[in-house]
Amino acid sequence: MTETTFPRIHAERLLASLQALGQLGALPGGGVNRLALTDADRMSRDWTVQRMRALGMEVHIDAIGNGIAIYPGQEERPPVMMGSHIDTVRTGGLYDGNYGVLAGLEVIATLHDAGLRTRRPLAVAFFTNEEGARFQPDMLGSLVYVGGLPLAEALATQGIDGPTVGEELSRIGYAGPAPVGMPQVDSYVELHIEQGPVLEQQGKQIGIVEGVQGIAWTEFTLEGVSNHAGTTPMAMRHDAGLVASRIAVFARELALRLGGRQLATVGRMEFRPDLVNVVPNQVVFTVDLRNTDDMLLQQAETELRAFAAQAAKAEGVQCRARQLARFAPVAFDPLVVEQVALQAAALGLSTLRLPSGAGHDAQILARVCPAGMIFVPSAGGLSHNVREYTAPQDLAQGAQVLLQVVWQLANRP
Amino acid sequence: MTETTFPRIHAERLLASLQALGQLGALPGGGVNRLALTDADRMSRDWTVQRMRALGMEVHIDAIGNGIAIYPGQEERPPVMMGSHIDTVRTGGLYDGNYGVLAGLEVIATLHDAGLRTRRPLAVAFFTNEEGARFQPDMLGSLVYVGGLPLAEALATQGIDGPTVGEELSRIGYAGPAPVGMPQVDSYVELHIEQGPVLEQQGKQIGIVEGVQGIAWTEFTLEGVSNHAGTTPMAMRHDAGLVASRIAVFARELALRLGGRQLATVGRMEFRPDLVNVVPNQVVFTVDLRNTDDMLLQQAETELRAFAAQAAKAEGVQCRARQLARFAPVAFDPLVVEQVALQAAALGLSTLRLPSGAGHDAQILARVCPAGMIFVPSAGGLSHNVREYTAPQDLAQGAQVLLQVVWQLANRP
Repeated sequence: MTETTFPRIHAERLLASLQALGQLGALPGGGVNRLALTDADRMSRDWTVQRMRALGMEVHIDAIGNGIAIYPGQEERPPVMMGSHIDTVRTGGLYDGNYGVLAGLEVIATLHDAGLRTRRPLAVAFFTNEEGARFQPDMLGSLVYVGGLPLAEALATQGIDGPTVGEELSRIGYAGPAPVGMPQVDSYVELHIEQGPVLEQQGKQIGIVEGVQGIAWTEFTLEGVSNHAGTTPMAMRHDAGLVASRIAVFARELALRLGGRQLATVGRMEFRPDLVNVVPNQVVFTVDLRNTDDMLLQQAETELRAFAAQAAKAEGVQCRARQLARFAPVAFDPLVVEQVALQAAALGLSTLRLPSGAGHDAQILARVCPAGMIFVPSAGGLSHNVREYTAPQDLAQGAQVLLQVVWQLANRP
Repeated sequence: MTETTFPRIHAERLLASLQALGQLGALPGGGVNRLALTDADRMSRDWTVQRMRALGMEVHIDAIGNGIAIYPGQEERPPVMMGSHIDTVRTGGLYDGNYGVLAGLEVIATLHDAGLRTRRPLAVAFFTNEEGARFQPDMLGSLVYVGGLPLAEALATQGIDGPTVGEELSRIGYAGPAPVGMPQVDSYVELHIEQGPVLEQQGKQIGIVEGVQGIAWTEFTLEGVSNHAGTTPMAMRHDAGLVASRIAVFARELALRLGGRQLATVGRMEFRPDLVNVVPNQVVFTVDLRNTDDMLLQQAETELRAFAAQAAKAEGVQCRARQLARFAPVAFDPLVVEQVALQAAALGLSTLRLPSGAGHDAQILARVCPAGMIFVPSAGGLSHNVREYTAPQDLAQGAQVLLQVVWQLANRP
């Protein structure tokens, strides 16, 4: 079978499945609220498992609640896995995560309709608590799957509303009997909306995801002196707000100077006492640095902390820095990345090579097997937002690339 | 009587009166809470009126609740007035306002003890709601007194907790029978703690207050676009927080460049959505500009708004500026200012000429008569703070200067 004779995925069926799943936990004004292991998540799991079984797949629920469905191959070998997650943030959209799982099932349905089997088995997985909006850390299910987090520790994790992962898994009936980490995976391909504006702005149809950025989150606490704005000469001030502002401006300049993939964001900033006529004595703010190159990310962190210390000293302000998060960049395997490029080209789709700015289960699976991702455009770059949207044609094209990529991977010698 | 034979004020009596008044509305950990027209304010008014009457003064309570006590002179002429206020902010100290009123009464007590009368009468006033912490605007009582605010409008002013000025005046029994604006005042002298660090830092005992700074408060609202910190390239951002930070840094540079008396403070800053990994789409912040020179203050305002508009435009962010307050600078009358300088010198006290950074009733009285102020040092520049403190010797010296200044003013031909 050549590229031109590949079966085509059924676009209407894929779109209908996204709409149907989007009804579960739907918010009144649009979007969905399906925090991990809530009743809404249970409904979406039941619905997805039923759909998997209807395709003749064997469904395994493991001890951390991951759902893994197998479509048998011609040979008994580790499967090529597709997947993502079906939990959402509190005000999420219909596509983040869900698209990767449902497109995986659409690939299976297409092969099933055509009576086709691959050499290796195929699998479709939904991983528990990818979002991290109810339980920390995010990507919890895939992390346990690859052995990156002990099962007992994950089960004991307490949610923002009280109960633990283990309690909630039992309550909703998803503390499954399958051992975690089974089956062993041949390779992993995750189709996802970009969640950023780049593909749309550059008019590209498919994103060839080369890796996931490294992340360094730092919280700075500046302690100055609270003084009357009208009676304190400029030279006698110890203004925590001014120092915070200088660091925020520096962070932007640093990102532009390092260039390439360096990002810098000051997203949180809180002034105390936050009064119009009082010099702020305390400011807490965060800097989010990201880069695909870990050396450059380390350089950015070092330069930022050095500038912060110097700016604080110059104003007579105390500066404390605390690392909130640090993840090294992940490079996806050329086995998957180049197959995505090949199949997108075979379909005549325009492409862009880019890193993922957000975290995904694929970066966790990359620890144990060749992994990669396919992106489709997000309208306005919006995600984690009820207005999240990707055009039907883009959704269909992404699923077709996924079909052809896993076909090649599963049929290789 | 020459300077050297002036009677001396009774320092212990003055200090004891400050401590006694500080018991009314006292906070558990020190300091006082005597918001205007509360029960605590009523107690402090009753206590002060009783003390005035004990000195043989005739006390007039006017329709806006100002208390004015007259110590008769040798001639029937408009009095030389001393005074300030006895309301406080929610977490105030013992000196702000109270010191000016009680030092005025100490001056009267000293003259009374010595059997001395001035040519013109003397008056001691406490003005209603100087702080503005419960009712807006601040300096409300003196403003009505000089005809700067209609009585009816002032009475209808609603407090932060609901009731109006008129209702609360009636409730505490201070809707007085005296017509506002009576008596006409010859001149006005207000003794006050500096509320800033300058006298202490420069080791000066008496501040010769030349005027009150002009104030321009601007609230900026910046509207950008909320985007994912990991997926939005730097060049595609519309970061309201970055623009706010740039403006805050510019405000400091502007103050240093204009030099002299120019002050600039960014005291409030609020980010939305205020999340570590989201580019802020809205920032509201304030800039407090002050200068003793109105032309320079106008220049600072113009430059600030121009920079803000340009910085916002460069980032693709909308910028709205709203004026929250604007007061022109006030220059005190040389009749009072030079008398303060003369009497401080006669007492061998070190002095500094400086503007008042905060607002005071004296700037309102300056509309209708020669007015001026005397400052004494504030430890650490702290005020509007339960830790507000001025050393006993400084308090005594200030009161002695006040005595000698009003003696000269009241006895001039």
